[in-house]
Amino acid sequence: LSGLEWGAETSTAGVREQLFDLHRGERRVPGVFWSPGDGAAPGAAGDLAPRPLVLIGHGGSGHKRQDYVLAVARRFVRHHGFCAAAIDGPCHGDRRDPQRSSERLSLLDFSQLWQSDATMTDEMVADWREVLAALGDDGGVGRGPVGYWGLSMGTIIGLPLVAAEERVGVAVLGLMGLTGPTRERIAADAPRITCPVLFLLQRDDELFNYEAGLALFDALGAADRRLHVNVGGHVDVPADEFAATERFLARHLSAG
Amino acid sequence: LSGLEWGAETSTAGVREQLFDLHRGERRVPGVFWSPGDGAAPGAAGDLAPRPLVLIGHGGSGHKRQDYVLAVARRFVRHHGFCAAAIDGPCHGDRRDPQRSSERLSLLDFSQLWQSDATMTDEMVADWREVLAALGDDGGVGRGPVGYWGLSMGTIIGLPLVAAEERVGVAVLGLMGLTGPTRERIAADAPRITCPVLFLLQRDDELFNYEAGLALFDALGAADRRLHVNVGGHVDVPADEFAATERFLARHLSAG
Repeated sequence: LSGLEWGAETSTAGVREQLFDLHRGERRVPGVFWSPGDGAAPGAAGDLAPRPLVLIGHGGSGHKRQDYVLAVARRFVRHHGFCAAAIDGPCHGDRRDPQRSSERLSLLDFSQLWQSDATMTDEMVADWREVLAALGDDGGVGRGPVGYWGLSMGTIIGLPLVAAEERVGVAVLGLMGLTGPTRERIAADAPRITCPVLFLLQRDDELFNYEAGLALFDALGAADRRLHVNVGGHVDVPADEFAATERFLARHLSAG
Repeated sequence: LSGLEWGAETSTAGVREQLFDLHRGERRVPGVFWSPGDGAAPGAAGDLAPRPLVLIGHGGSGHKRQDYVLAVARRFVRHHGFCAAAIDGPCHGDRRDPQRSSERLSLLDFSQLWQSDATMTDEMVADWREVLAALGDDGGVGRGPVGYWGLSMGTIIGLPLVAAEERVGVAVLGLMGLTGPTRERIAADAPRITCPVLFLLQRDDELFNYEAGLALFDALGAADRRLHVNVGGHVDVPADEFAATERFLARHLSAG
């Protein structure tokens, strides 16, 4: 393991936020770690160790600190005293091509990447697993209960991660279906997921076909799986549904 | 209006429970009314008037005081200070044939009734609407926000009620589909429902086909409609899903 290289640290209303990089061979994995502001910094003291950790996968064209990722992370820290971590997706955030003028990728960019790079899923799963291991080495974070939260691209990458990483004991997934370039991979991984899952779909999703989403929900191996469908398009998940995902993860992680 | 004939009153941990009968022509409609134990009895003082009212429709083979109806009613009274009311279904509870030895109907009994009596839905909708009007005359209850909660038979009867009664402003429905003897009636009424709806389905429902349930969710006219699917059979709705229905109704009724 290369270990984590800690960067800038800030604190906002009781939430400490620390940037980090993990170097995995040639790859740089830029991430961010959130913890209660009154806790010790990772590596300094052990009091973060028993806290549950939520891994958050951002959406296509977003990044590790996009608005809703920040909001979700801060809810877990403030309301439950958990830790949270996010990393940039492939070519997203601080992994984007420095030649590109825009800070955000377009959804078309991600779609092309998903289409063209067969190693994308495996490399992202490996990134996440090394980050999880390195956080554990660096203060013991993540040795307690671990949950995953990720929709859309956060499910394209996160579903294989949850299937592969047995330390993830509960997941929020959705806004995705049995479709796309990695359809077969997703279909093979879904039955391997046996931890509790809350799965979200939007009835009028313009990016992912509703029936393909229902099929992915059915393919999950979890005995405790729940489907929540709301009306509206891909980005119209209601605010109180975010609260429901928080309750679902917190209930399982606090009991773990 | 014939008005309500009030019967026995009991009180349990802050919840007052009063039996009533409403006489509508030849029909006797036996019901029960729950209110906060510290509130005035209907007709005595006006302080129940502004409280939200939840109408609860029980399931096939059950009755107005079956365990989960009591539990739902008491939650609304205790947690939110609302009032609640339930009436026996057709040939259920105190409307059952006195010749029958068993207190409970079998599901087969209800299925036969649903099949054979074309007036069942209209008569039950009329029963509910007169009860709602009579509660309003008798202390002003139900002049504030009104919600409906009913699954399975509680949706077979409740969906037409919610479509017909404009004072119902929010509903929890489910465990039913576009199927059965009243399929066409349900299909015609569903688009007329425009209040917010939380709709529940069980993925492995042995009584109602899942796809027919999805079709009924799609047929609802409500702009704000949510679908929650849980695994398991018809009676396996998880306990925390009942809590979700409570939150959903309370959020809308408290804002109303």
